Amino acid sequence: MRLTQGLQRAALVHAHGPGTSHGGITRSWQELKARVARLAGGLVGRGVARGDRIAILGFNSSSYFEAMYAIPWAGAIAVPLNTRLAVAELEAQLADCGAAMLLHDTAFAATARSLAAVFPGLATVGLDDDWQDLADGPETGDAERGGDDPAGIFYTGGTTGRAKGVVLSHANLIHNVLNLGPHFRFGPDTRCLHVSPMFHIADALSIFGVTLHGGLHFFEPKFDAAAVLRRIEADGITYLALVPTMLKMLVECPEREGRDLSSLARVFYGGSAMPETTSRRVIAAFPHVRFHQGYGLTETSPTITHLAPEDHDPGAADGRLSSAGQPVLTVDVAIRDDAGADVAPGEVGEICVRGPTVMQGYWRNPEATAAAFRNGWFRTGDIGRIDPDGYLHVVDRAKDMIISGGENIYSAEVENVLLQHPAVLECAVVGVADENWGERVHAIVRPRPGMTVGETALQEHCRAALARYKCPRSVDVTDEPLPLSGAGKILKAELKRRAGAPRSR
Amino acid sequence: MRLTQGLQRAALVHAHGPGTSHGGITRSWQELKARVARLAGGLVGRGVARGDRIAILGFNSSSYFEAMYAIPWAGAIAVPLNTRLAVAELEAQLADCGAAMLLHDTAFAATARSLAAVFPGLATVGLDDDWQDLADGPETGDAERGGDDPAGIFYTGGTTGRAKGVVLSHANLIHNVLNLGPHFRFGPDTRCLHVSPMFHIADALSIFGVTLHGGLHFFEPKFDAAAVLRRIEADGITYLALVPTMLKMLVECPEREGRDLSSLARVFYGGSAMPETTSRRVIAAFPHVRFHQGYGLTETSPTITHLAPEDHDPGAADGRLSSAGQPVLTVDVAIRDDAGADVAPGEVGEICVRGPTVMQGYWRNPEATAAAFRNGWFRTGDIGRIDPDGYLHVVDRAKDMIISGGENIYSAEVENVLLQHPAVLECAVVGVADENWGERVHAIVRPRPGMTVGETALQEHCRAALARYKCPRSVDVTDEPLPLSGAGKILKAELKRRAGAPRSR
Repeated sequence: MRLTQGLQRAALVHAHGPGTSHGGITRSWQELKARVARLAGGLVGRGVARGDRIAILGFNSSSYFEAMYAIPWAGAIAVPLNTRLAVAELEAQLADCGAAMLLHDTAFAATARSLAAVFPGLATVGLDDDWQDLADGPETGDAERGGDDPAGIFYTGGTTGRAKGVVLSHANLIHNVLNLGPHFRFGPDTRCLHVSPMFHIADALSIFGVTLHGGLHFFEPKFDAAAVLRRIEADGITYLALVPTMLKMLVECPEREGRDLSSLARVFYGGSAMPETTSRRVIAAFPHVRFHQGYGLTETSPTITHLAPEDHDPGAADGRLSSAGQPVLTVDVAIRDDAGADVAPGEVGEICVRGPTVMQGYWRNPEATAAAFRNGWFRTGDIGRIDPDGYLHVVDRAKDMIISGGENIYSAEVENVLLQHPAVLECAVVGVADENWGERVHAIVRPRPGMTVGETALQEHCRAALARYKCPRSVDVTDEPLPLSGAGKILKAELKRRAGAPRSR
Repeated sequence: MRLTQGLQRAALVHAHGPGTSHGGITRSWQELKARVARLAGGLVGRGVARGDRIAILGFNSSSYFEAMYAIPWAGAIAVPLNTRLAVAELEAQLADCGAAMLLHDTAFAATARSLAAVFPGLATVGLDDDWQDLADGPETGDAERGGDDPAGIFYTGGTTGRAKGVVLSHANLIHNVLNLGPHFRFGPDTRCLHVSPMFHIADALSIFGVTLHGGLHFFEPKFDAAAVLRRIEADGITYLALVPTMLKMLVECPEREGRDLSSLARVFYGGSAMPETTSRRVIAAFPHVRFHQGYGLTETSPTITHLAPEDHDPGAADGRLSSAGQPVLTVDVAIRDDAGADVAPGEVGEICVRGPTVMQGYWRNPEATAAAFRNGWFRTGDIGRIDPDGYLHVVDRAKDMIISGGENIYSAEVENVLLQHPAVLECAVVGVADENWGERVHAIVRPRPGMTVGETALQEHCRAALARYKCPRSVDVTDEPLPLSGAGKILKAELKRRAGAPRSR
């Protein structure tokens, strides 16, 4: 099982069919296969060796897509970087994975130069300029890595505050495609617009699944609701994968009126919960679309459960729409208590997962890997229950995490930065319900005795070290001690209640 | 990846939905899961240990279905036996796999007694009587074998005349299901009637695929066209998998007239080529059915290529209907010359296969296993070409094999038996085109000087040692030497031409 096999298959079964369309250039699957073989040759020519980590920093594009195939073709491991990270965060991830090369687009040329200055051994290749030079070189043979060989490292925030590299194998990523294939019905008629960031694991299904079935890829650099609506009409887009926040923006965008969006047949959303009232509004706005919801984690490639279009019907059983759906084909889901025993049917416990989509571990981090597994089962840290019809309901997240606009934000990471401020004695970061983003980041800070600090100063302090989306949108400064549990843990639920409406889901 | 995971999933996502219906008894998936756990407990109670081989000899039934899950649940390996074999052939296979137990239905009770007399260590369990005793016992936990662990041994005739045990792992069988899932769209609404023999690898997709998606299984003990047509109407059957010979019988059966067969949505056929004129007649007779064709071997679990419903449309490109379709999702197909090099695109060569459905090898037969692979690719022995649209055309079989009514018959096996007759000097067995069976077995025999032998005597001689379907349907006795090639090989093509119309495909 090789990711490149999907590309080879597309070039065989749909040779002259279009594979990518971007910036006015359409390439057939046969052309794409040859181009990827030359790009991989170019990478090897620039010193890339088997098993090397190649980071990618850029907005969605056909070059990004090609890189996701050229890297495994060359026998290397892709490290897609979050474009919203601060330079310090990118540095930490490049250092952690020991990247040999950084592919970047023009928007990140300056960032790439800063990073190259920090890592003298790091080769940089521009996806907008150098890329064509690589594509003009000679082809190289498929390195034929596959199965349990690592295909990608996807960084995810950690409860300890340090990002962890989730190592996903070829088999992991392919099994996610196979598990969802019967539901999504990709084929040569699929016209997929990449609107979610391609660095995110959620887009892997689109990249590798649409290719395996010989569909056609279109690209939007970043999400812009009006642009997406125009593209659906102009390009006859049939498939989108996005986060609830984006879906809500599409529904509310004035550009929607009068547009012919009838080509859009299927929408996959996931990455965070969507309040049921929002779901109903979205379904009503696109009555001809079949909606699919996915629940999962980066560590599970990512899909654990799937909520089918039938479950989105107005006539579906109560509670279906607020559930996360049923386990996908080859994934085992168990609900366990703190001791690791199965809870009674229907009871609440930690969601644990086993199957061919579960990561082998975190990159060079055996402690974190060991902590993530118990008896061969991956512990999501999320709390849920399974109803008598086999639907998973995610009740809460055990890992102290905020999901804002589909991005995971670990409270500990933000708290660590706040605590580095000289005036901060103690602090807590929580998510509060937000109409547009699902949740937004809120901080409660207690200054050191005799010192004062304001909201703006703390926000600026955070921006220097953290991606913008992780920085607190609001800060309460208080002289009272933070409320503690009997065990001495900060009572975040209490702080959330004080800060705003309780979290949904 | 465990076969039992599919059963567990069905019991979770479709707990109260019907799983099997047979002899007036319908069992829900939840009941079936508990029953399989008890049956496995019964097997363990009768001494079955991890890795033991358990042979099954019986017609299609819900007990057969349960056995296919109870055996892996107990950690053992299933050995489904061909019900049409002669006792001597069954003995050879039981001896080869070293079976610890034989499950058999009432129709094979006498055969089971004969076999038990030959193998004193062989436990026998009746699927019609003892089975319920086993099901009344305590549950046992899932042995949780999976992945590359052997799940089944499927015997296939060999060019050397000795049957070889094809070892298929859990992952092999599951990947065949995953590769076809997007095409077949199994779901809780699927109502599958098992009409092809369940011992055959082709039925594995129905057993394991319909279960994984929570569909409903019905069973016909043996194929009978009139009965099948009645069952389609009475049970609202939506899905059948069968060989071309059966399909032709359904079309020609007078019972078809006046029956409401509108529930039948999908038919999968494979196991041998179907002449294009027959295909067109079948398609015309069932205009509302979506037809799928599969090409493959036992060694490939079995599906290598798939011909989709669209390719069966009257408007499909010329040559599509006579092709074997396109490679399934995760299977690589290459066309190689005798030296093992890829032929030029479109050229004819040996069909070679690689992917997660390819067997690990033949049971305790490293020589045969080594001969079947070259550089990690499985050599099918079949000759074919791939057209510019990625469709495989099977031109001929390099292995000297006849396919009659979907059963593979190796000429060498029949020739070996004929040569054991004292009057036979030399002989050749070939397949000649047959309207009903695709091919039928024809023998050309040259007696020893001064001796005579007749067709009937030779047929009786064969019946003592071979399954009926392998015995020559016609025998030409000749005093002329058999025609030889320059290299001294019997010119079978020449003999075929003399015996009847040349083979199609």
